[in-house]
Amino acid sequence: MPIKWLKKSIFVIVALVALLIPGAALAQNVLASHGDGGRHAKNVILFIGDGMGDSEITIARNYYVGANGRLNMDRLPFIGASTTYALQEANPLLTEFVTDSAASGTGWATGTKTSNGRISTTAKTDIDLPTLLELAQKSGYLTGDVSTAELTDATPAVLASHVSNRNCQGPADMGSCPQDKISAGGPGSIAEQEVAHNINVLLGGGKQRFDQLITDGKYAGKSVLESARNQGYTIATDANSLKQSNGKHVLGLFNSGNMSLEWTGTPAQPYPGSGPQTCQQNQRPANEPSLSDMTKKALDLLQNNHDNKNGFFLQVEGASIDKQDHASSPCQQIGETIAFDNAIKQGMEFARTHPDTLILVTADHGHTSQIIESPTNASQPGAFSKLITKDGSIMCVSYATAPVGASQSHTGTQVRIAAMGPDANKVMGVINQTDIFKIIKERLSLR
Amino acid sequence: MPIKWLKKSIFVIVALVALLIPGAALAQNVLASHGDGGRHAKNVILFIGDGMGDSEITIARNYYVGANGRLNMDRLPFIGASTTYALQEANPLLTEFVTDSAASGTGWATGTKTSNGRISTTAKTDIDLPTLLELAQKSGYLTGDVSTAELTDATPAVLASHVSNRNCQGPADMGSCPQDKISAGGPGSIAEQEVAHNINVLLGGGKQRFDQLITDGKYAGKSVLESARNQGYTIATDANSLKQSNGKHVLGLFNSGNMSLEWTGTPAQPYPGSGPQTCQQNQRPANEPSLSDMTKKALDLLQNNHDNKNGFFLQVEGASIDKQDHASSPCQQIGETIAFDNAIKQGMEFARTHPDTLILVTADHGHTSQIIESPTNASQPGAFSKLITKDGSIMCVSYATAPVGASQSHTGTQVRIAAMGPDANKVMGVINQTDIFKIIKERLSLR
Repeated sequence: MPIKWLKKSIFVIVALVALLIPGAALAQNVLASHGDGGRHAKNVILFIGDGMGDSEITIARNYYVGANGRLNMDRLPFIGASTTYALQEANPLLTEFVTDSAASGTGWATGTKTSNGRISTTAKTDIDLPTLLELAQKSGYLTGDVSTAELTDATPAVLASHVSNRNCQGPADMGSCPQDKISAGGPGSIAEQEVAHNINVLLGGGKQRFDQLITDGKYAGKSVLESARNQGYTIATDANSLKQSNGKHVLGLFNSGNMSLEWTGTPAQPYPGSGPQTCQQNQRPANEPSLSDMTKKALDLLQNNHDNKNGFFLQVEGASIDKQDHASSPCQQIGETIAFDNAIKQGMEFARTHPDTLILVTADHGHTSQIIESPTNASQPGAFSKLITKDGSIMCVSYATAPVGASQSHTGTQVRIAAMGPDANKVMGVINQTDIFKIIKERLSLR
Repeated sequence: MPIKWLKKSIFVIVALVALLIPGAALAQNVLASHGDGGRHAKNVILFIGDGMGDSEITIARNYYVGANGRLNMDRLPFIGASTTYALQEANPLLTEFVTDSAASGTGWATGTKTSNGRISTTAKTDIDLPTLLELAQKSGYLTGDVSTAELTDATPAVLASHVSNRNCQGPADMGSCPQDKISAGGPGSIAEQEVAHNINVLLGGGKQRFDQLITDGKYAGKSVLESARNQGYTIATDANSLKQSNGKHVLGLFNSGNMSLEWTGTPAQPYPGSGPQTCQQNQRPANEPSLSDMTKKALDLLQNNHDNKNGFFLQVEGASIDKQDHASSPCQQIGETIAFDNAIKQGMEFARTHPDTLILVTADHGHTSQIIESPTNASQPGAFSKLITKDGSIMCVSYATAPVGASQSHTGTQVRIAAMGPDANKVMGVINQTDIFKIIKERLSLR
């Protein structure tokens, strides 16, 4: 009886709307004011948990809130699975089943799959692909790009630069991209391109890239950071200066490399493994903002920007989930997952008072870590660690996609995509990561 | 603007209904006829892919239909994540992060978590827990239980038996369950209890358990199979006799142990790994029905049973996905996943013409296999195999949760749950596997 099903479905939708948007009436007033989004403002916040497969989510939940607890991201109502595969550079008709963040990011940022290592350029043919951020700017939206990695790392890079190799992060790093150099008529390094994109909020690590000197063109001899100041950016370099930052364009660089980790602990080790251990929390230096702080500030800056008429598109990456999975370090990996989840909470709270906000939470690829029974045999492959979880039970996490001590491997599994807000239902079922581009493009009516 | 979101959501729901239920009008007529469900018949089909985590689904999709192809189960619209954890036997307040099929099955069959190895009894206290099948029977629903494993294996067992140890499959297997023996006043082995449950359709492997002689009680000296005949079951022992089977109670046993595998291929091996290989399909002997055949026949038998007034509850397990993941055999694992997917197709087709059917597809736990880049180093841990996929690309599958040659380990990751039909939206978000019990109980108004 389809009618009955329909009724039930509508009831659930209505209940979800009521649940998620208590401040709807309030928001109508907010939306009408100036410098705070026009009456028809639409916002999209895309959260990318780098390497955050279902296994990584479960590990963080079990440790931090218990197996029957729920993370913030667990409370998003609409769920789908996203494929993450890439293409082969030599023959893009063939599939690369294990993607890196550059190819997967190019997928969600441009709607087109590419090969590993590429930043918003096509596999083999090296053609620049228009990105969500570029299309959003063209249609009058404000934009923001936030990460705990270097701002020139793959995920923030794919929105605002086009190079053939992700390594070409600063003017002194162009060895792999001779054709992209300004002297060769190219657009320059990722750092230069990001600054040139007039993004409203750029927050993350990687100051070392922006301290490099530009070699050619209008800003030759200046650092990328100086050129950013010349182009109208307000610069923040620590948590305090970020707090006080204001302006239409803010560039925050809070670490010379990737931002500091939230937690520490003993890495996984071969049999008999490390632990049982309790992770050391609160390890981030006070002069670096948390991902949650950066997200909150980005939302404030975008929402209150005097140019905010139509709304904004903001990307927030929890980058070091991946990096600590590579390093077989469960405590650090969990700490970064929880920090990412706290940033998602900021987005969800914003959406509750700004209901025309679509929130998407997904990963760019799966990763290594698996929950297994504690091994009892010295021939156990890989490295592992036993963790004492929230409820006092022992959870054993295994890392075995690469030799012990080597960087662990991404995996090719489909990953979870979760959403709330208008058009959130479009993530349901199984989609490709390139469909994220389409969902956001349609939501913001981009051309 | 919540109203807009609501409208969009309703539109999508309506579109999904239209898409999934082309035969709605036809079904109204069908539902009105006799021996075919009454006017208020409700059906639930629960598909359990044993060990079918997101990684296992992706591996099967990549191999069989290509990374951009879609399986039948991928087309289910409503998606959630299900936790699978169990409890510790010695102290059920503590979590067992890696479940087995018995504890996880007890979770979805009874709504109560238990410890590994238990069949619908409580951890530590060994109290029998009422199952979905028992409650459905009490409320006048027909019931069916189908598996490619022995019918006395954990997943089919949890619906229709209560023992403290999953090993107690036949009357001669009661060593681990002295208190459950009939001579000790217990309910007897799993096989005896299943037969005594008057299930309408019981199809699977495990004839060896039913050939064992009952030692005590009314049927002492008879085999479980003879006792089943005495209790009114029609017996089928091969694909042909199944086809011709009819009656209110049908017991089909198609292999002395687990049913034969669909595909074969070379198991994973240590570096440099096995393959590149193409799997050998169509390996199942013709005298054994496929899981799809069994599902179709179960649906026919239930739907056309003259006692069918209120509808039915049917469980269908793809059991050997797990068993072949344990064995590090990617071809066999994929073949069983595809066979399971074909069975799901039967359920989806039934639901299209019988729209008051809720279909749920999930796994009882995650498993070992991961898609990684092909290793280039002899120190690579575990075993792996390279497979030539549908589109001619190479996919490398790794098995490294246990020593090479040993049985690989279940994992504790959350697993996908997908649904279509009335109340399908209740799987959205993150649920526990025990919530499956609640969803079905509410759907069928069980008490």
